[in-house]
Amino acid sequence: MRFDETYSGNVFIKSHPNYEESKAVLYGMPMDWTVSYRPGSRFGPARIREVSIGLEEYSPYLDRELDDVKFFDAGDIPLPFGNAQKSLDEIEKFVKRVLDDGKIPVGMGGEHLVSWPVMKAVYEKYNDLAIIHFDAHTDLRTEYEGEPLSHSTPIRKIAEHIGPKNVYSFGIRSGMKEEFEWARENGMHISKFEVLEPLKEILPTLAGRNVYVTIDIDVLDPAHAPGTGTVDCGGITSKELLASIHAIAGSDVNVVGFDLVEVAPIYDPSEMTANTASKLLREMILGWVK
Amino acid sequence: MRFDETYSGNVFIKSHPNYEESKAVLYGMPMDWTVSYRPGSRFGPARIREVSIGLEEYSPYLDRELDDVKFFDAGDIPLPFGNAQKSLDEIEKFVKRVLDDGKIPVGMGGEHLVSWPVMKAVYEKYNDLAIIHFDAHTDLRTEYEGEPLSHSTPIRKIAEHIGPKNVYSFGIRSGMKEEFEWARENGMHISKFEVLEPLKEILPTLAGRNVYVTIDIDVLDPAHAPGTGTVDCGGITSKELLASIHAIAGSDVNVVGFDLVEVAPIYDPSEMTANTASKLLREMILGWVK
Amino acid sequence: MRFDETYSGNVFIKSHPNYEESKAVLYGMPMDWTVSYRPGSRFGPARIREVSIGLEEYSPYLDRELDDVKFFDAGDIPLPFGNAQKSLDEIEKFVKRVLDDGKIPVGMGGEHLVSWPVMKAVYEKYNDLAIIHFDAHTDLRTEYEGEPLSHSTPIRKIAEHIGPKNVYSFGIRSGMKEEFEWARENGMHISKFEVLEPLKEILPTLAGRNVYVTIDIDVLDPAHAPGTGTVDCGGITSKELLASIHAIAGSDVNVVGFDLVEVAPIYDPSEMTANTASKLLREMILGWVK
Amino acid sequence: MRFDETYSGNVFIKSHPNYEESKAVLYGMPMDWTVSYRPGSRFGPARIREVSIGLEEYSPYLDRELDDVKFFDAGDIPLPFGNAQKSLDEIEKFVKRVLDDGKIPVGMGGEHLVSWPVMKAVYEKYNDLAIIHFDAHTDLRTEYEGEPLSHSTPIRKIAEHIGPKNVYSFGIRSGMKEEFEWARENGMHISKFEVLEPLKEILPTLAGRNVYVTIDIDVLDPAHAPGTGTVDCGGITSKELLASIHAIAGSDVNVVGFDLVEVAPIYDPSEMTANTASKLLREMILGWVK
Amino acid sequence: MRFDETYSGNVFIKSHPNYEESKAVLYGMPMDWTVSYRPGSRFGPARIREVSIGLEEYSPYLDRELDDVKFFDAGDIPLPFGNAQKSLDEIEKFVKRVLDDGKIPVGMGGEHLVSWPVMKAVYEKYNDLAIIHFDAHTDLRTEYEGEPLSHSTPIRKIAEHIGPKNVYSFGIRSGMKEEFEWARENGMHISKFEVLEPLKEILPTLAGRNVYVTIDIDVLDPAHAPGTGTVDCGGITSKELLASIHAIAGSDVNVVGFDLVEVAPIYDPSEMTANTASKLLREMILGWVK
Amino acid sequence: MRFDETYSGNVFIKSHPNYEESKAVLYGMPMDWTVSYRPGSRFGPARIREVSIGLEEYSPYLDRELDDVKFFDAGDIPLPFGNAQKSLDEIEKFVKRVLDDGKIPVGMGGEHLVSWPVMKAVYEKYNDLAIIHFDAHTDLRTEYEGEPLSHSTPIRKIAEHIGPKNVYSFGIRSGMKEEFEWARENGMHISKFEVLEPLKEILPTLAGRNVYVTIDIDVLDPAHAPGTGTVDCGGITSKELLASIHAIAGSDVNVVGFDLVEVAPIYDPSEMTANTASKLLREMILGWVK
Repeated sequence: MRFDETYSGNVFIKSHPNYEESKAVLYGMPMDWTVSYRPGSRFGPARIREVSIGLEEYSPYLDRELDDVKFFDAGDIPLPFGNAQKSLDEIEKFVKRVLDDGKIPVGMGGEHLVSWPVMKAVYEKYNDLAIIHFDAHTDLRTEYEGEPLSHSTPIRKIAEHIGPKNVYSFGIRSGMKEEFEWARENGMHISKFEVLEPLKEILPTLAGRNVYVTIDIDVLDPAHAPGTGTVDCGGITSKELLASIHAIAGSDVNVVGFDLVEVAPIYDPSEMTANTASKLLREMILGWVK
Repeated sequence: MRFDETYSGNVFIKSHPNYEESKAVLYGMPMDWTVSYRPGSRFGPARIREVSIGLEEYSPYLDRELDDVKFFDAGDIPLPFGNAQKSLDEIEKFVKRVLDDGKIPVGMGGEHLVSWPVMKAVYEKYNDLAIIHFDAHTDLRTEYEGEPLSHSTPIRKIAEHIGPKNVYSFGIRSGMKEEFEWARENGMHISKFEVLEPLKEILPTLAGRNVYVTIDIDVLDPAHAPGTGTVDCGGITSKELLASIHAIAGSDVNVVGFDLVEVAPIYDPSEMTANTASKLLREMILGWVK
Repeated sequence: MRFDETYSGNVFIKSHPNYEESKAVLYGMPMDWTVSYRPGSRFGPARIREVSIGLEEYSPYLDRELDDVKFFDAGDIPLPFGNAQKSLDEIEKFVKRVLDDGKIPVGMGGEHLVSWPVMKAVYEKYNDLAIIHFDAHTDLRTEYEGEPLSHSTPIRKIAEHIGPKNVYSFGIRSGMKEEFEWARENGMHISKFEVLEPLKEILPTLAGRNVYVTIDIDVLDPAHAPGTGTVDCGGITSKELLASIHAIAGSDVNVVGFDLVEVAPIYDPSEMTANTASKLLREMILGWVK
Repeated sequence: MRFDETYSGNVFIKSHPNYEESKAVLYGMPMDWTVSYRPGSRFGPARIREVSIGLEEYSPYLDRELDDVKFFDAGDIPLPFGNAQKSLDEIEKFVKRVLDDGKIPVGMGGEHLVSWPVMKAVYEKYNDLAIIHFDAHTDLRTEYEGEPLSHSTPIRKIAEHIGPKNVYSFGIRSGMKEEFEWARENGMHISKFEVLEPLKEILPTLAGRNVYVTIDIDVLDPAHAPGTGTVDCGGITSKELLASIHAIAGSDVNVVGFDLVEVAPIYDPSEMTANTASKLLREMILGWVK
Repeated sequence: MRFDETYSGNVFIKSHPNYEESKAVLYGMPMDWTVSYRPGSRFGPARIREVSIGLEEYSPYLDRELDDVKFFDAGDIPLPFGNAQKSLDEIEKFVKRVLDDGKIPVGMGGEHLVSWPVMKAVYEKYNDLAIIHFDAHTDLRTEYEGEPLSHSTPIRKIAEHIGPKNVYSFGIRSGMKEEFEWARENGMHISKFEVLEPLKEILPTLAGRNVYVTIDIDVLDPAHAPGTGTVDCGGITSKELLASIHAIAGSDVNVVGFDLVEVAPIYDPSEMTANTASKLLREMILGWVK
Repeated sequence: MRFDETYSGNVFIKSHPNYEESKAVLYGMPMDWTVSYRPGSRFGPARIREVSIGLEEYSPYLDRELDDVKFFDAGDIPLPFGNAQKSLDEIEKFVKRVLDDGKIPVGMGGEHLVSWPVMKAVYEKYNDLAIIHFDAHTDLRTEYEGEPLSHSTPIRKIAEHIGPKNVYSFGIRSGMKEEFEWARENGMHISKFEVLEPLKEILPTLAGRNVYVTIDIDVLDPAHAPGTGTVDCGGITSKELLASIHAIAGSDVNVVGFDLVEVAPIYDPSEMTANTASKLLREMILGWVK
């Protein structure tokens, strides 16, 4: 993690060398210790940066180039292996500084629990905050086998913190019965299975709102993102996810922060998942950082 | 962890501990000796069970939980390596007992030839039987390089046994010219390339019928199921296959047995194929065992 | 490379043993030295032939068998490793002979630059030539890091050679801003993101024209073709690519040569990419060699 | 295949069905949350059991069969993901019961930190305890980036607990300068690089002592055990490790417990590491449980 | 399979185009249907040929080039998938013709059972035959789970056929207690664990004898040959196996046939096993075909 | 490539931030276009740096830490893809500057041809230069299929340039007959198969000489380095290679430059080859930069 130019580490293509001049700050959160199934997302941020050299800098979708947006790559936040609470504290501290400096936080996971302290910090600054959440899983548990700090809980935590009515989940195709019931009873929005169509209906209702977008890469079908901890078939295509990103870019919401999590490279020898993540980030940065 | 003899190790998630009380019986048929291309489906059942621990027990598609259905996991049927005839005999013997005990047989392959003795046994019990068959391949050969016991022949065998008019194949995109001609000339139904739409048209015509459903995982496009012996592009998505399973669940046919075959884990380092198979089985059990 | 029957090497299934009697000639161009990202497509042709043994000889799409078309497999053109200019010269020389002998050249790459000398030679014979180009990338650069012989340049070279108005690209989703601008300013057709629908609109305008078709396998989404040098998400399905091949087959264009390039087997442990390439070639041969 | 409740699925080959009658108890400790590099050893115990079906039951090295030793496979100890302290507590509780019941604990990791509570519990029962430790790494850190509960610390913890003079490390080829110095200054034995020869010299000096043996699979060269978190070249062969196990079996020490840790299957597509671990465990059980 | 020059298939580097002129005949036996663990050796012969193009034609060990020995590559013997008896019959028929034509049979497996009909045919011609057998496994079972045609039985079959005293096994480290006992009681030679040293002692006693050598690639440690069905640690290095081949070459035995079996490429993404097999075959051909 | 501190790229662990203050300069030469078999070594330098974070900074072999040696990581030299001559020119220019600045060049390949311009530049400065060469292959060809710029030629080029008597090759086990003959006739030293013992004999004869050491990772057996272009069995262990590095460190030669080439990560999913390369480089830097 760095705030100056003297850092020497693997960085995202076309990231800006200067923190102060940048509008957005990209950072990695290499944590995977609370996952209940396959670990490995700690290596997600490093691999996404590495393969980003294969990216074109120009988006033919948005007709915009990475040089048009100043974003600084701060590297990975150093996290104490195996200590979830302390890791979340470090993330929150870092993101608060980014927000205090008036910049947009752009996170790369790591497991989904890392989004919890980020969303909390963003909410502190923007108290009208709405969450747009793309995922295969509800992530609405209160705990997992007794542990309240689990990768299955971040959306529940933020929903209880900012009010379930302000949380909009899309693409959900897995969860406990209780999670779906809790969402329904508490007025939280869940679009089951689909993303683009329901998103297009919701976006106008959020016009003018400050929004944080959190994308779990497993919202994609395993065919499109095999390199993740918990693959779950029946998902959407990368084409649909790109279109969803562009729908947000073309809407009237104000994106004040966002992340992409759960890329676990070891399960994908073709490296398509990391390559896809790097392209998604390019589109998110080009489309949402205005 | 256990301290007594009732421990059950590698079994499908939420399978019932008691055979007698169960309505359906899950079993593996770890045979792959007659395949003409890539072997390895003998390890399908074991890997499907292993990854099933990553499954949620609840289906948001069907609003039903695995606890709502009593199914017993009987493990794998021991088969003599390299002896096709004796293997088929063992399978038939086992399935007959399951049927005699009034339970629904739920098989996991193994190569597709294993379905032949199962369908024969089911037909013995239900002589109005119709077969619903999802596959990339016709499987209508009479022999393969001289061998009548081949993974390319099971649908031909059952079609001749119960009458071709009672067999409905969907998603077929590969076969010899003669196979397609035989089907056409004998009144067997083949939906080329597509599954869901033609299935929706056929299902009402089968209302009230006893039906056996056999799914070769390679009906899916290789993108969705790389871990199988013979990948064949141009297939359907896992989303469409899920919808097809749900279409059968919502129809008026009476499913009296079913199987899912040809998962060969070694060709899929991401394990998405086994994960997909375990979810498909969950949906089949929840949707079809009433 | 051979022109007689005494050759002993791995050949494509059902290729004809005699050069003189054949209407089309299949050949490999195992070159990958100018690629800017992941090499390995030199092994594409060999692996495509190897897995072709798993193919059915009959196409249920076109109701035609490989025995109905005489095509000769000439093996791989020997190319000097690491010498791009000399390699291209060898390819051009070989293809000229094939054309002089009145046969249709059917190439397997190798990197996309190999298509440049082929298209040049075909244009020499058919000066009303139009190019149909399926790809994720524009390939319209003039050079790459100073090198005019680069896998990013073949479409620019042929467009300048035969006139940009005669080049039709489909499925493009990656390129520099300048490349898209050059195409627009010079009247070259680019269909961004989509293939089948725009192709169906263009084909009637090409009725009666001689056409060369060049397919970069990465026009497919990485889910369908992970085994290629530069994966780029948001692509089309293999189902759509098959339909596009069939659309050309059913149109009034006269296909005088074609190729399929950029299969790099090492990135795809499931071998689905090579299997898909072999099926695409079967459909192209059955549909386009009349 | 089973028709009753006494079925035991994924267990180590030839493990005894009855806990009370068994002399040794095998158990998995699927924890990997404190590792600083590549996670995945949580899946070690399950995969070792799975591949054990490929093992012969007879050891031609020791002329003894698994049926000659009653050992019970208790399955994996359920551990709370991401909570190191609680996980260690669970392990300690389990092992204490095994020891109280007069049985020999035989552990499978998981990361090396899991050995710490086991060794502590064993020392409570046998206060003349010596530790024999095979590893590539010293594991003598006091903390890792601030965390005292780290996979780099278990040998330091037990050395401080039972006295460094009672700890004998073999095969060590990696560590911080300070770790080697601490060992030297405190009278702990470290054999750098080599295992068998120094072991043969040490064993006679331990005659009659109660000994716990802990083996980190990475004591093997990566050529012999690629499936582990931190590969480190320059290690010993599996042949030498087998000979070392047999040297202990032939000595006069009294092995009162042992473990094998750090098998991480995902990094080894050939599965040789899990296969090797299962054979090592067979030899350890046959040689050390008398 | 072919006996003339018109065949077009993948062949071993520098094999001679003419059957009649050749002294030795190389052929593949792509059978793996009786293996009890991991199948896939059916693809061994094809992959060994494919990677042989990376071999140097000259052996610095023997100072001889492949051009110095005329050997014909007859391709793979077509075998009926899943029918063990018929497959063995086909192999026997083919090898008899090779022997009748006065040529040395050089086989590539496939599973080890394929060696049985070959050795039987060779014995018919040379009734003083001795067998030299390199393997990790005894292969002395009479049946496997009831099947007398199993990959665990070929050495038992030939030992009973030609007399156990004429069979010399080296490197054995796995088998049932009964198998070792049978060998000892019947005067068959088994060198446990080691190869080179005991071989050097035995060879002089075989001076002048006609010898068939059968090598199961799993005599190598898994580190050196991960791509095989049943990996078993504690084996020898490829350096030792090369030296053993050279020891036979330098001895006074008369090698009248030989094979190399059990290469299963799918388990070895690095392809080192097939590469090693191709080099071993080069050395065997250069050293043994005189 | 950089000469100042503002660079932001992936660097080797504990490299010094300042070029001027450093005694040695590490750089990557990501070229693989002339290889005749499997490409991919262009990604060697990046992956070696990436995995170097898993290295301990201290060598228990040499009792020295990376902090004790100032070495600067200059990144990769930008090379034009597919243009061999221009690439070699760029390398030569870079290395000359490093030498002019009085620093020791430490190269990472890339294919072996990259060593040729480096050795030429070093010879210009030190005209008593001797070359110590570890490799499986002679690399003494004059051309490969007509190309004088080939990965099979660098040792021939330098031998002719500085005199064959000044070149010492070790571990060679592959090459054409002519290459071995040329070496013998011209007084060049080749130790076939072995490294450590002959090296120990040669080193005293080189006392006081300036020496460049070039290591092709394939001198290791494929078991120890599967991730390379041309695997060749019968090689040495990583333990022996480490001992050879230490033998040079303990000798009286003056190492004025060195490199490690041919690491191709894609062929090694376990990443052991890159890990081994990073440890070898640590030992080379600690042992040879005095």
